[in-house]
Amino acid sequence: MTDTPQRDPYLLTPGPLTTSLTVKQAMLRDWGSWDGDFNTMTADICDRLLAIANARDTHVCVPMQGSGTFSVEATLGTLIDPASRTLVLMNGAYGQRIARILDILERPVITLDKGDYQPPRGDEVDRILRDDPSIRQVVVVHCETSSGIQNPVEEIAAVCKQRGRDLIIDSMSGFGALPVDAATLPFTALVSSANKCFEGVPGFGFVIVREDRLADSEGRSHSLSMDLYDQWRYMQRTGQWRYTPPTHVVAAFHQALCEHQTEGGVAGRLTRYRRNRDRLVAGMRELGFQTLLADAWLSPIIVTFLSPDHAGFDFTRFYNTIKDQGFVIYPGKLTVAESFRIGCIGQLHDAQIDAVLIAIAGACRSLDIALPVPAPAAAPDNLMTA
Amino acid sequence: MTDTPQRDPYLLTPGPLTTSLTVKQAMLRDWGSWDGDFNTMTADICDRLLAIANARDTHVCVPMQGSGTFSVEATLGTLIDPASRTLVLMNGAYGQRIARILDILERPVITLDKGDYQPPRGDEVDRILRDDPSIRQVVVVHCETSSGIQNPVEEIAAVCKQRGRDLIIDSMSGFGALPVDAATLPFTALVSSANKCFEGVPGFGFVIVREDRLADSEGRSHSLSMDLYDQWRYMQRTGQWRYTPPTHVVAAFHQALCEHQTEGGVAGRLTRYRRNRDRLVAGMRELGFQTLLADAWLSPIIVTFLSPDHAGFDFTRFYNTIKDQGFVIYPGKLTVAESFRIGCIGQLHDAQIDAVLIAIAGACRSLDIALPVPAPAAAPDNLMTA
Repeated sequence: MTDTPQRDPYLLTPGPLTTSLTVKQAMLRDWGSWDGDFNTMTADICDRLLAIANARDTHVCVPMQGSGTFSVEATLGTLIDPASRTLVLMNGAYGQRIARILDILERPVITLDKGDYQPPRGDEVDRILRDDPSIRQVVVVHCETSSGIQNPVEEIAAVCKQRGRDLIIDSMSGFGALPVDAATLPFTALVSSANKCFEGVPGFGFVIVREDRLADSEGRSHSLSMDLYDQWRYMQRTGQWRYTPPTHVVAAFHQALCEHQTEGGVAGRLTRYRRNRDRLVAGMRELGFQTLLADAWLSPIIVTFLSPDHAGFDFTRFYNTIKDQGFVIYPGKLTVAESFRIGCIGQLHDAQIDAVLIAIAGACRSLDIALPVPAPAAAPDNLMTA
Repeated sequence: MTDTPQRDPYLLTPGPLTTSLTVKQAMLRDWGSWDGDFNTMTADICDRLLAIANARDTHVCVPMQGSGTFSVEATLGTLIDPASRTLVLMNGAYGQRIARILDILERPVITLDKGDYQPPRGDEVDRILRDDPSIRQVVVVHCETSSGIQNPVEEIAAVCKQRGRDLIIDSMSGFGALPVDAATLPFTALVSSANKCFEGVPGFGFVIVREDRLADSEGRSHSLSMDLYDQWRYMQRTGQWRYTPPTHVVAAFHQALCEHQTEGGVAGRLTRYRRNRDRLVAGMRELGFQTLLADAWLSPIIVTFLSPDHAGFDFTRFYNTIKDQGFVIYPGKLTVAESFRIGCIGQLHDAQIDAVLIAIAGACRSLDIALPVPAPAAAPDNLMTA
């Protein structure tokens, strides 16, 4: 793994993120998508991902071209019987997007909408499933980057298992750093992407899906390109992606998986991301900033900070001043409060976290906001407890 | 443009293809997909593509994540009114795929199927359109790489214009080398991809589409991810791709467009590709190989050669022997005859064409096939004339 100093800004965002130089260098080669060398790489990627999820015996891994949303749509369109109902757990933009996809696909949807940042809990889901036997599957977002909350997928998986329903996890920004073990966290499908916690570059997603469920899904997809069943069968038969894969991005992801393993796999990566988050949150609190969420709900992926209650705070100027210091942060996405987000994932280490804190302090000064910054006047229940 | 010697095999395929080192080096940087610098690059790409098609006044350019097929599906799903009929001109795998997409999307389809390699002609299309006023649009493949034929899109466009029908051109492997001028080749939409004649790397496609038609297409798409209308509106409003773009692939494409311009744009690239094709075809004929098509129909993109009529000819051994010499060729896709294909596009110049001819001659010898190779016993009407 390379940690070469770079002139380009560090990306403290939920992805695309800052990748290692060696991951990017894996793209300095052209691959024939029909050729055996490339097929071997694809097969190794799928095998490694299944191993990481401890799902080799029960699931298959199917990659899909496009952004992560394409993989989510492919999963929903391929797996969900149009006659069945789906419970979507929403607490942010990604849960809302799942419900929107199902609406467009004309799959019946029931939502549990927890607003901007409240977690869906196991007991609530249990009551809904108990009262409505027509719900055949539940969809949940592992880490909802709108707020940065890490949703309690373990308790939701337990409820789904007990009630005999399928669980689809959108773990776009979680898998690779948040532990996923198919033996103890039962799921039907888990969707993720190349450019999140595995620290590849963007261009495709992948689905780890129960083989029996996928085998039952022939001819169900609303789309040719995003037919997960067809992609799987074709890859089984030929070793190739069904349509042209993003060859360079795939090669970068293979390198990223090797580096993930070198760092100690999920446990190693989680340790570093947690350390980034804790260092960031502590430093920001020293500067007077408040997190939206109580500590128990803070993911190690991205953290939402409330904007300071000061007339001089202007996000665009704040962003640009910090960018001039070499760091790209992320705007907020809340409806209830002004906020911004800072990511903890990608090739970020102590030095970068310390430097971004200095850049943020400098940006406050350049906006004539004295430190520590004033707390938001009407903070929402941001001291929400677990 | 760099023409650095490389150890990796040259790809004589219809894409992914061999790109310049400088195009690949453009991927050695991480971009924030939300950031202004990246948006500027996307806007410049779209503007350059519109200029190349002479379509700035009438059309807009909308990029789409995924392989080229995703862009084709997005175009069909977004533009075609489900109540209208579509005439699909088929003479190979890509025309067949278009008809299949329309079937899945439940859009009524009429096909003109010319088999493996016969061109659809303007007068045939004219008769069909005359007899069936319910056909609102025609879809044609510019260069059908199944056979390597360059279809006569000019005469088809003229007929469509005269009959007042929309024309959608799948110019995946044509645009960038085959001339496209919206003023003289009237089209409603033209779909192409990053990793063909512009010599970028794979990961997204794009559509050059009449603004008035796209503006009429709100809410029509069968898919959230592949809604071309939404992608366009979002990009107009924010400058951003609607969902995470393949940032590195986009940066490589921007570099590829600059190199395309340096080479003299479409005219310059067409000159080189034609030279590659002519040198390749002349050399192969000297070795005794026959082309499937008469010269008038040979595209400068990829050429189909008939397999020699010799018991010792085994494509896999032939392929591997040539690959050992540093060249990846492509299998055939005909139902009527054994064949293989050799591409002319990508960073290929005289030296590579000469070297692949030497490698092919060597492969024949290693298969104990004397040169010149024996002609196929029952050649189809491969001396088809214009």
